[in-house]
Amino acid sequence: MRTLTVDIKDQPYPIHIGPKLLDRGDLIVPHLAQKRAAIVTNITIAPLYLSRLKQTLAASGVESIEIILPDGEQHKNWHTLNTIYDALIAHRCERKTTLIALGGGVVGDMTGFAAATYQRGVPYIQIPTTLLAQVDSAVGGKTAINHPQGKNMIGAFYQPKLVLADTETLATLPKREFSAGMAEVIKYGLIRDLPFFEWLEANIEKVMAREQAAVIHAIYESCRNKAEVVAQDERENGIREILNLGHTFGHAIETATGYGTWLHGEAVAMGTILAAKLSQQLGHLDEIDLSRLTALSHYAKLPIAAPNVGVDNYLRLMASDKKVREGKIRLILLSKIGKSYIENDATHEVIVSILPKS
Amino acid sequence: MRTLTVDIKDQPYPIHIGPKLLDRGDLIVPHLAQKRAAIVTNITIAPLYLSRLKQTLAASGVESIEIILPDGEQHKNWHTLNTIYDALIAHRCERKTTLIALGGGVVGDMTGFAAATYQRGVPYIQIPTTLLAQVDSAVGGKTAINHPQGKNMIGAFYQPKLVLADTETLATLPKREFSAGMAEVIKYGLIRDLPFFEWLEANIEKVMAREQAAVIHAIYESCRNKAEVVAQDERENGIREILNLGHTFGHAIETATGYGTWLHGEAVAMGTILAAKLSQQLGHLDEIDLSRLTALSHYAKLPIAAPNVGVDNYLRLMASDKKVREGKIRLILLSKIGKSYIENDATHEVIVSILPKS
Repeated sequence: MRTLTVDIKDQPYPIHIGPKLLDRGDLIVPHLAQKRAAIVTNITIAPLYLSRLKQTLAASGVESIEIILPDGEQHKNWHTLNTIYDALIAHRCERKTTLIALGGGVVGDMTGFAAATYQRGVPYIQIPTTLLAQVDSAVGGKTAINHPQGKNMIGAFYQPKLVLADTETLATLPKREFSAGMAEVIKYGLIRDLPFFEWLEANIEKVMAREQAAVIHAIYESCRNKAEVVAQDERENGIREILNLGHTFGHAIETATGYGTWLHGEAVAMGTILAAKLSQQLGHLDEIDLSRLTALSHYAKLPIAAPNVGVDNYLRLMASDKKVREGKIRLILLSKIGKSYIENDATHEVIVSILPKS
Repeated sequence: MRTLTVDIKDQPYPIHIGPKLLDRGDLIVPHLAQKRAAIVTNITIAPLYLSRLKQTLAASGVESIEIILPDGEQHKNWHTLNTIYDALIAHRCERKTTLIALGGGVVGDMTGFAAATYQRGVPYIQIPTTLLAQVDSAVGGKTAINHPQGKNMIGAFYQPKLVLADTETLATLPKREFSAGMAEVIKYGLIRDLPFFEWLEANIEKVMAREQAAVIHAIYESCRNKAEVVAQDERENGIREILNLGHTFGHAIETATGYGTWLHGEAVAMGTILAAKLSQQLGHLDEIDLSRLTALSHYAKLPIAAPNVGVDNYLRLMASDKKVREGKIRLILLSKIGKSYIENDATHEVIVSILPKS
């Protein structure tokens, strides 16, 4: 097991990464404020890991209730969130009852937002079971639901007490979802860590074959990069924005194609390539760096051809992004592999030039 | 004008109290992060004060959009909150766009919660126009919406940048609403400020006649008491709980009778008398102190006879209160006027003994 700390002021918390952590009551129970917890999961994950987690808690004398959501980004909305609130109230959960998110990014984002807002805030723990959640969404305290007009438009910054990434849960992850998680792994190399990007180029086959040592290293380095950024800027007033590489294009793709059609990670991967193309078009990124990114994405079985949802849709949805300032689209772009910058002055013309056209 | 500071760590903010503050762009504009704001108000307040506030902002070069909600506690729910989100998105409001709550407690609580959660948090300002909001709900950062099963069950602790209490807006407040605000004013004397309670006993006629000097003093002393408590315990892990005197009984009354039937302040006033009766029944409060409270409530034109909604309803709704710990109802009670304590061990029998019975 490897351990990191997310060094947030007043409330640092650990990330544990390794096999069989679902059995480690000794890692979980010290973070509970009472001997009662509410596990939030979904219909896909529940048959795989719910009873095991409940047994781990029960063995430590912790009673757990279960809340089982539908699966998929299209359910990350107010309606599903309300089923969490209803269950918490029906089970008389209190301010000291800890919520435990057992699942992927959707479960984690919604459980975190429910924890941020139920009775004005209760504790929560992240137990991510997808690669994307283990390397990204479970770390850093961003919680949210979607609005029909925009991805993650309603949410809160609210930190968990603990992140527990059991790497064996990745064994049951469909290939497409594993690839989607790789989008965020590659992102960390691109924005701030050339040695990690080079390690990925050299080890992409081992990672894609899910060799434990390679996967654990990839998760650890991803979490380390994210934790370092988040500790500097918890609420995204500055440096944290670089974590959104590919996300402005990506959110437009997710929203325009309908939540759940493209997986979030797939859309981010595609958005990252579009951001790299734009960086090159603006004269900031070398052709060879764009090619290395495209090749690595290809080896990670990620999409490299953008969907044609219409240039106007791209521009309209990108203009409603949360990073917009004074009406200007604010993009994270690349000056080379391992180095990102913020671009406020990309014209619509140059953005259009790298988008697919009918 | 009198000014106080709510001394919250990292983000202290001012409360200004006095006449004609709606005209004071110089007090508002320095707190805006961009020259754009979204005013949230309701159908009752909009015709009275909205255009004046917009003019004040326009005179300082600030563009404002308006979001007008229905009026009443029964609308403090997800549906109305969503109309705020929809309008913010439709007007392309950004993370630096400040929300301004212009209205009473319902407008303030919902605007604050919208600000806490839109794009994971945007700045907001409270401009309370009711006595209850000026002395209580606009101060301290509690934001929320109701759930069918419980008052303020979904919310966040999220502090405003500024509270501006224009005491002239109270001139248009219906008598019943002014009285409802007095419930919270009296509460501050009861829980921690005997001299203020005695001042209220001596000056209740002037306050009820809305003499400016008396009203400003009452608001200032109320805000001072609240600010001192909130600065010690922003997130209600301890001392802040005493501000909930009367609220556990009161929320049960509000929920059982249907949101909007009893005004929040009326329910709190009634709940405070029930809490005092329980304190006396438990041998902690003298008969004379209960009588002084009942008399002052009477002079403030507040209800002193509890509704008979059924003993079982009272107990069930009180048991779902946010202060419940390990299944025990946690009540703020009084040991004398000016001194409160937390009671965890009141039996159902003794609670029932002070409730109205059919």
